[in-house]
Amino acid sequence: MAVYTEVTDDEVRAFVAEYDIGEVVSYQGIAEGVENSNFLLRTTRGSYILTLYEKRVRGEDLPFFLGLMEHLAKDGIACPTPLHGRDGPSLRRLCGRPAAIVTFLEGMWPRRIQPLHCAELGDAMARLHLAARGFPLARSNDLSLAGWRALLDATAAKAHSVQPGLAEELGRELASLEKSWPKGLPTGVIHADLFPDNVFFLDSKLSGLIDFYFACNDLLAYDLAIGLNAWCFEPDLSFNITKARLMLQAYRRRRPLEPGELEALPILARGSALRFLLTRLYDWLFQPPGAFVRRKDPLEYLAKLRFHRRIAGPTAYGLD
Amino acid sequence: MAVYTEVTDDEVRAFVAEYDIGEVVSYQGIAEGVENSNFLLRTTRGSYILTLYEKRVRGEDLPFFLGLMEHLAKDGIACPTPLHGRDGPSLRRLCGRPAAIVTFLEGMWPRRIQPLHCAELGDAMARLHLAARGFPLARSNDLSLAGWRALLDATAAKAHSVQPGLAEELGRELASLEKSWPKGLPTGVIHADLFPDNVFFLDSKLSGLIDFYFACNDLLAYDLAIGLNAWCFEPDLSFNITKARLMLQAYRRRRPLEPGELEALPILARGSALRFLLTRLYDWLFQPPGAFVRRKDPLEYLAKLRFHRRIAGPTAYGLD
Repeated sequence: MAVYTEVTDDEVRAFVAEYDIGEVVSYQGIAEGVENSNFLLRTTRGSYILTLYEKRVRGEDLPFFLGLMEHLAKDGIACPTPLHGRDGPSLRRLCGRPAAIVTFLEGMWPRRIQPLHCAELGDAMARLHLAARGFPLARSNDLSLAGWRALLDATAAKAHSVQPGLAEELGRELASLEKSWPKGLPTGVIHADLFPDNVFFLDSKLSGLIDFYFACNDLLAYDLAIGLNAWCFEPDLSFNITKARLMLQAYRRRRPLEPGELEALPILARGSALRFLLTRLYDWLFQPPGAFVRRKDPLEYLAKLRFHRRIAGPTAYGLD
Repeated sequence: MAVYTEVTDDEVRAFVAEYDIGEVVSYQGIAEGVENSNFLLRTTRGSYILTLYEKRVRGEDLPFFLGLMEHLAKDGIACPTPLHGRDGPSLRRLCGRPAAIVTFLEGMWPRRIQPLHCAELGDAMARLHLAARGFPLARSNDLSLAGWRALLDATAAKAHSVQPGLAEELGRELASLEKSWPKGLPTGVIHADLFPDNVFFLDSKLSGLIDFYFACNDLLAYDLAIGLNAWCFEPDLSFNITKARLMLQAYRRRRPLEPGELEALPILARGSALRFLLTRLYDWLFQPPGAFVRRKDPLEYLAKLRFHRRIAGPTAYGLD
């Protein structure tokens, strides 16, 4: 739940006048997303999303994010396309914050995941990885191994209040991942946050990917590992092998996985589970309850982490 | 900031299928309004607002609210019009709550009030009062004198934490209003909450009135008294007599005020200031800070109350 910055009607009108998209007829704050202030903007020409980037997004990363969306959209990926003002730039300022207008995507994110959603996701993820190959900018993943160490250090002293022994278990896990994290696998730009609420569908067809504000350069297979955690567990936290198989098969039809990538999937899935566990744990421990943000349960990801630690290998994901 | 109920895409699709408005292409929670969950709904036919009524709205009042909007819309008032499902009713259920779909109104509420906004408001308020005359249902104003007494009793013990002596001052004020509250003036359906965020404009023309969930039967001039408080004070809490004059003149051109109504305006304005002061005070004292609602400063209305108590008569509002 977001919208942190109040924008007056005069300010919106003046901002939109810098674009060639007609006159504002309405704008409303959207109660989704937690990082930025998002407004659904309607003009005499159509619908758009106006985003004000709040302090959790670093200003120096914005050219990467906006450039990536524009690059992907030109390459046929259904994602928000940043609009350029009449004088050129798509990254502008509004109410003292960096701001941009992007195209509006139709579709709804699926609240109840069906196997067909996972197949569509796998295909779209592979297309995204392939389309991003020509994108010239790069951004390192600050939520990879080194970032996890920092988050663990910051949360260790209080983690027992969430579950006794949690810091110790996560410490052992991180030490193990630091030793065994794969090297030499294919890298490129990944989305890094393809949770269901960032993937729109119309009927059963994927209609768009949104929220590229964690995108970065990393192992391509790490995006799949995030997808396994975010899409292939049931609400009771049991693993749905059918969903995983469909996602991975669809991905591989478009971009075949190297043997090393397949083999690394369980380790990458453990890393991905640890990453979301640690950021959720941090928010849980340090976020003031009145911050207009619904805190997510960190322990959901402890169960997922343990699942990936227990399995014998990538065949547990339905692969031959 | 609202949206309390999460509605799944399957639930929205099934709900919309009961209407003749095409297929859902997107819906998003709106971060405005504090009483209900509101979604901007887009279908293959157009844009609509889907509202789920949360517990602050009494179910037995909903036929009055929805019936009133439909009556007013038929009479040419620009306001949300409830849609009827194929089987008849406009008041339905979704996610265990009463729910309705209404038309979407274009326009933006003015963050910085100009005198011309006040003139437009006065005219629209009079048109609303006249159009509501044929509406057959009635609803008493539970936030009038008796309601204020209950709110004062509930807040008196803690009011000093907001300002020393506050409960005593409000007690004297309420006793005075109880003695002098006007009787025998014209009554009818009033909106009772025409704050700027409930009045939409396109350019400088009023394009719609929204949020009829405080509408009730009461003295018609009481709506004007609410308008004086909500629209005619500057951010520094000084009274802008030009705005008041324009609002009242525009109203009187459409519905002339009786001499008794004019004379009663200062008392009604004191009552209106006390009403919003008390509800804000109650929310301030008893609302948990994490309730996703921005609490409003009750003392803003103490300054307004004192202004109306100090003036010599209705000429202070710019009337001849």
